[in-house]
Amino acid sequence: MTATTTALSLVGDEQVLRTAALLRPDDDPAVVAARAAWSALVEPGDGVAGALIAACGPVHALELALSDSAALPDLGDPRAVSEARARWLPRAHPGAVVDALRGCHEVGARMLLPGDPEWPDMLEDLGPHAPLVLWARGEPDTLGAARTVSIVGARAATPYGESVAAELAGDLAADGTVVVSGGAYGIDGAAHRAALGAGGPTVAFLAGGVDRSYPIGHQQLFDRIRRSGTVISEVPCGGAPTKWRFLQRNRLIAAVGLATVVVEAGWRSGSLNTAGHASSLGRPLGAVPGPVTSAASAGCHRLLREFDAVCVTTAEEVRELWGGGGGSSSAGASAADPDRRRLLDALSGRTPLSPEELARRTGLPLERVRGLLGMLGLEGRVQRTEAGWTAQTKV
Amino acid sequence: MTATTTALSLVGDEQVLRTAALLRPDDDPAVVAARAAWSALVEPGDGVAGALIAACGPVHALELALSDSAALPDLGDPRAVSEARARWLPRAHPGAVVDALRGCHEVGARMLLPGDPEWPDMLEDLGPHAPLVLWARGEPDTLGAARTVSIVGARAATPYGESVAAELAGDLAADGTVVVSGGAYGIDGAAHRAALGAGGPTVAFLAGGVDRSYPIGHQQLFDRIRRSGTVISEVPCGGAPTKWRFLQRNRLIAAVGLATVVVEAGWRSGSLNTAGHASSLGRPLGAVPGPVTSAASAGCHRLLREFDAVCVTTAEEVRELWGGGGGSSSAGASAADPDRRRLLDALSGRTPLSPEELARRTGLPLERVRGLLGMLGLEGRVQRTEAGWTAQTKV
Repeated sequence: MTATTTALSLVGDEQVLRTAALLRPDDDPAVVAARAAWSALVEPGDGVAGALIAACGPVHALELALSDSAALPDLGDPRAVSEARARWLPRAHPGAVVDALRGCHEVGARMLLPGDPEWPDMLEDLGPHAPLVLWARGEPDTLGAARTVSIVGARAATPYGESVAAELAGDLAADGTVVVSGGAYGIDGAAHRAALGAGGPTVAFLAGGVDRSYPIGHQQLFDRIRRSGTVISEVPCGGAPTKWRFLQRNRLIAAVGLATVVVEAGWRSGSLNTAGHASSLGRPLGAVPGPVTSAASAGCHRLLREFDAVCVTTAEEVRELWGGGGGSSSAGASAADPDRRRLLDALSGRTPLSPEELARRTGLPLERVRGLLGMLGLEGRVQRTEAGWTAQTKV
Repeated sequence: MTATTTALSLVGDEQVLRTAALLRPDDDPAVVAARAAWSALVEPGDGVAGALIAACGPVHALELALSDSAALPDLGDPRAVSEARARWLPRAHPGAVVDALRGCHEVGARMLLPGDPEWPDMLEDLGPHAPLVLWARGEPDTLGAARTVSIVGARAATPYGESVAAELAGDLAADGTVVVSGGAYGIDGAAHRAALGAGGPTVAFLAGGVDRSYPIGHQQLFDRIRRSGTVISEVPCGGAPTKWRFLQRNRLIAAVGLATVVVEAGWRSGSLNTAGHASSLGRPLGAVPGPVTSAASAGCHRLLREFDAVCVTTAEEVRELWGGGGGSSSAGASAADPDRRRLLDALSGRTPLSPEELARRTGLPLERVRGLLGMLGLEGRVQRTEAGWTAQTKV
C-alpha cells in the first residue's frame, strides 16, 4: 500500500480502461475496471466488500475503499469497512488490475458480472458473500441451464466411488442436467468425465485463476470441459489456488446446484464443507452411501447421520432432491398396486376398523389385508390404535 | 369343530391339567391349560383373542369362545368375536392342548406367561397383539436383561453384510447387550454367532415351535444358543413355521429390542416388515448402509430414504439409538475443541455478528473463525443472516 494509491490511480489508467473496453465493449469501462479491481483486491467471500458494493456501486465503493479521508459508510458495524481496508490496501496497485483484465483477455476468457444473462441467479442467495466477478472459459450459457446439480467428493476416491459418481453424472447429463463440480482428482474428475461422455455440459469451478490447470494432471480434462462446458473462477487469472480459496470455491459449487450430492468423503473431507454451504443455503443435500468398512464413505454416512442428508443411490433419486423426478417414484409405483388402493379407499380417517372389517369391505383375504396394513404403517399412511386401523391424514 | 367341544372338554382333561401342573407347579392348572389352549387355537397376533383375554381372563374367555350359546362381549366391534370364533373353533380339539403342553415338557422348554419375571415387559406395547404365551428353551432370564438390541437382515446376505452384522453383534454382546434375532441364515445367523463368540447371551425368536430346528442347517446353532441364551416362540411345539408366522414373529423381534437394526435387506425383504413393526412401536430404527451397487443393501437404503431410519455404521452408533452411547459421540468430541468452544461462547443468540467481529472477540484468526462458522452452520448450531452470524437456540 502506498499513501498515494487512489481509485483513479488504480483503474483510471489508459491501459486498464482500454482492456476493459475490449473485454466488455457494451459497458462503461470505469465500472468494468472497478469490478476487476475488486476481484484483484479481495479474497473470495469478503462480505464487507459485497455489502459496500451493494450499498455504493463498484466505482464509488472503490473510491471509498482507497481514499484515506472519505467518511466510511456504517454497514451495521462501524468498524467493518476500516478493518477491511487493512486487508484490501496492501493489494492496491495498478498492475494488479491490468493483470487481471489482460490475463482474462489473453486466454480468451469472459468476464462475467452480476446481471449478465450468463450470471447464475442462484449466486444471489449468497448475499454479500456472492462473487463480485466471475472469470469463465468455454461455452457461454452453460450455467444458464434450467437444471444444474453439484456432484462433489473425495480426491482420494475409491473405484467404487468413481464408478457411482460416473453413473450418476452420466445419467443426469444425458437428460440435459448440467453437472457442476470442482475439477479435482477423484469424484470431481469422474463426474466431469462422465458428463462429457454423455454429451452433456459440465462446469468446473476452480479455486485459482482459469488460466491455470490445477491439478496439473487435469489439464486435458479442463481442455475438454472448455470445448462443451465452462471452467470458471471468481479469482482473476494468475491467482493461486490457496486453501482459503478452495473453501470459498465450495460455496459457489453449493450455490449454483439445485442440489448438492456428495459421493464419497472422508470423515473430515472438504466435501463436507461444500455440503455445509449447500445446507446453509437451503439447497437439498444428498449423500451416496457406501460400505461402512470404507473410510472414503465415512463422511457420507456422517452427512446421513448428523446432517439430515438424503440417501441417494440412483440418478432418479438425485432428481427427486429438487422435485425433478419422473412418475416412477416409489409412492407412485405403490399407489399403482390395486389391492393397496382398495385398502386405502376402505380405511376411514376417523373410525378405527379391524383387519377383519377391512377384509370384508375390500374383499381381500385377511392375511393380505394384514400384510398391506403393515406396509402402509411402515410408510406412515395408516395408524394402529387399540380399536383398529385408521388412515393417516396426509401431511 | 364339533358342537360338543367346550372349554371343559378342551382343558378339563385329567392329562391336560396334570401336564399343566408339571410345567408350572405354582399356578392354577386351569389358567395354565387355558393359556396353552389359546396358544393352540389362534394364530400369532390375533388381536381379538388378545382383547377377549384382556377383558375376561384366559379361562372365561375360552369358555365364551367355545360356548355357542354365550352372549359374546362387544370389544368395540359387535361382530369381532363371532367372526374370530369361526377361525378358532376348527382347531378346538382336546389333543391340541395336551400336545402343546406335552411337547413343551418333552423338550425341556419353559412355558412363559405374561407377568412372569422373564416375560419381556416391552411386549405389552403390542397391546391386544401381544403374544398369549411364550415357549422358551435355554437359559432363563436372558430376555430380562436391561439392554436388548434386535439385529436382523437378509437371508441372502453378502460376506460384507455378514461381517458387519458380526462386528456389531459381537461388540454389543461384549458389553452385555442381548442380541435378538430370528435364527435365519445370513444376517440373523451371523449376529447370533458373533454374540455367542463374544460370550454374550443371544435370543432367537422362531416362527415355528421350539422343538423344531428351522432352518435345519441351524440345528447346531440353536443348540449353542440354548446353552447360554434362549430359543423362543409363541407358537407351541409342533407348530410349523408358516409365512404368516414369520411375519408375526417379526413383531416380537421388533418389540423386545430397545432398537432394531437392519444390516442388509433386499428391496422387498422381510426385514422391512420387522423394521415397520419397530417403527410403528416407536422403537428407534437403524439401517446399515452398503454399496449402492449391492441389491442386498437396497432395502437398507430404502429405510434411510423413505422411513427415516438412522444410518448406523458402528456398535457405538447403534447404542446411540437408545441413548446408550458413551461420551465419545461427535457432539462431545466437537465440544472439546477449544476454538469451537470460544467461538460458541462469543456468539450471541440475538445480535448478528460478523466473522471479523467474532475474530476480534475470540482472538482467533479470521480464517479460523470463518472455517468454524462453516462447520457450526453445517451442524445447525449457528445461523447466517444478511447482518452476520447468530447462535442457534438449542432445540
